[in-house]
Amino acid sequence: MNWGVLLTTAKPDHMTDRDVMESVVGYAKSAERWGFSSAWVLEHHFTSYGLCPDTLTLAGYLLGQTTTLHVGSAGLIAPLTHPVRIAESTALLDQLSNGRFHLGLGRGSFPTDFKVFGIDPATTQELTRECADLLVKAWTQETVSGEGKHYVFPPVPVYPKPRSSPRPSIHIAGESPSTVEWAARNGFPLLMQLGLADEELRSRVELYNEFAELAGHDPGSIEHAVVCVGHVAESREKAKAAIFGLIEWWGEEGQRAGFQIEDLRRLPNYRYHLRRIEQAALEGRDSAATWISDWLDNNPVGTPEQCAERLKGIKAAAGSSQIVLALEGSGDPVASNQNIERFATEV
Amino acid sequence: MNWGVLLTTAKPDHMTDRDVMESVVGYAKSAERWGFSSAWVLEHHFTSYGLCPDTLTLAGYLLGQTTTLHVGSAGLIAPLTHPVRIAESTALLDQLSNGRFHLGLGRGSFPTDFKVFGIDPATTQELTRECADLLVKAWTQETVSGEGKHYVFPPVPVYPKPRSSPRPSIHIAGESPSTVEWAARNGFPLLMQLGLADEELRSRVELYNEFAELAGHDPGSIEHAVVCVGHVAESREKAKAAIFGLIEWWGEEGQRAGFQIEDLRRLPNYRYHLRRIEQAALEGRDSAATWISDWLDNNPVGTPEQCAERLKGIKAAAGSSQIVLALEGSGDPVASNQNIERFATEV
Repeated sequence: MNWGVLLTTAKPDHMTDRDVMESVVGYAKSAERWGFSSAWVLEHHFTSYGLCPDTLTLAGYLLGQTTTLHVGSAGLIAPLTHPVRIAESTALLDQLSNGRFHLGLGRGSFPTDFKVFGIDPATTQELTRECADLLVKAWTQETVSGEGKHYVFPPVPVYPKPRSSPRPSIHIAGESPSTVEWAARNGFPLLMQLGLADEELRSRVELYNEFAELAGHDPGSIEHAVVCVGHVAESREKAKAAIFGLIEWWGEEGQRAGFQIEDLRRLPNYRYHLRRIEQAALEGRDSAATWISDWLDNNPVGTPEQCAERLKGIKAAAGSSQIVLALEGSGDPVASNQNIERFATEV
Repeated sequence: MNWGVLLTTAKPDHMTDRDVMESVVGYAKSAERWGFSSAWVLEHHFTSYGLCPDTLTLAGYLLGQTTTLHVGSAGLIAPLTHPVRIAESTALLDQLSNGRFHLGLGRGSFPTDFKVFGIDPATTQELTRECADLLVKAWTQETVSGEGKHYVFPPVPVYPKPRSSPRPSIHIAGESPSTVEWAARNGFPLLMQLGLADEELRSRVELYNEFAELAGHDPGSIEHAVVCVGHVAESREKAKAAIFGLIEWWGEEGQRAGFQIEDLRRLPNYRYHLRRIEQAALEGRDSAATWISDWLDNNPVGTPEQCAERLKGIKAAAGSSQIVLALEGSGDPVASNQNIERFATEV
């Protein structure tokens, strides 16, 4: 079983940009010291929801600062970067770190990103799929050429070649059934977002396995990553109370920066996300106090025993997966480092 | 006086991609150990001329591996990356490394890059100038918006904010008088390419100083970077012979990947480069044996005393500048590390 930490680079009001950047390096080093095998960084732009705009550059620094820790992007927003550049930079990190970098791709859901970088949000799914296809070719063929709907370019040899054989890994941060199906058919493991209920995890993995098998992949050999929030305290109530405020703020920041309902209604490629929001409203789960509390119950938040129990449940639901824990929920770097230590030693 | 090393990531036939990547990390660490203050990395695509396609990611790794060494890009090809992304990633490195990253911008001269990434090569000068302008705004203003000919986007706050005050540095890898004038008017120091004769260096710096003063900048406070090739041996002949083969190969690779004469004739924004090539042909300096030998005479290549003498000459010509030495000319990592050590201790 592999354990990872999620490094959000979120910037609540009481922290400066410098605090955030120093703490992310500190968390990565703590994670390595306490035996976590990986740390995952996020890409966001123009929002305190996450200050890291470039997962490759941050991963480069963190890989340079560590010796055994693997570092992943969770994920890089594929439509915002040319696939050849992603192939090049990933191979560069793969060479420098001797295979310790793992690429995770998402299609993004923050409209300002697409506006600034000139991407039509209706094309994000197509762009992401073309991207993954080009990445595999760039890493495994002598040359690669763009012959898709969006990326068109002549055959070129992409350097450096990766060190990992047959190629660096690609995780897909996907939620909709169509994305799960596509990832499964290609044998790309999933990067599952924070706080899914066990039944959602289980059905997502079952769907994945069905399509993976159809395409000739052995589901048992594919290790997904499940992201959740973790916090240890003397009781579940204390643990929930310690992180409630920051989770609430983080959720609000994400909603502010993300697509609004009216955007989603216009974008057929985000209809799964629209349906989830509408369903939550229908079921009366759209007040922050209710959904955060329910959501935290899906996560390892409580006494060490309660956390261990919850992690067992997640593992049973998700099968062969690594669990990636966001352990910074208290918003205090010292407490977060202690939380990393307690998860490693007590849970 | 600051001294730097140039890390070319060139891949001659006898080296693998892995050799190149391991040696670049080794050179950076040697440089730090032997008291060099900076290391500079280059951006190239699709060619063994240089295997680093992403100076920001490589700089991230090298900054993570070192503690006092400054790392610069020399340069990042501005037209290939959106200015907002350059602003974001530079600020990220500035934060992580506490000001040890230095951005150098060039406009590029390899046509395949522009073809693959969809850039019209006739616009590279305009793109580079818009880019530098947006970088300064993104770092020093609350928000930045694209209102130029090429980059158009709504006002956004760019995160993280840099740590350096008032902003991270920008060097310009420029050769033509119009670029030198533009850099001077903006107070951006120059990154001067390998092996200029002293009189060229002197006239370039004089031109720069004239325009810098006109724009109200104090030329004495601006530190340019002069790049040259350095090699120490028992005699000038031995030193030249030790690196001649690799320099010849490197020059040929660069010519193969670069714009051809017929391309340059069509591109008014590269007419300075065309004229230099035509003039070399007119003066009969276009045979490799002749120009490499002449060119090496401009560089610190020879006994320690001869190298020290040459560096004095370069310094006198270029004024207040740091000298960045390419010390890998032998093509052998062990010999190159010894060369780094000898430059530090004997020259």
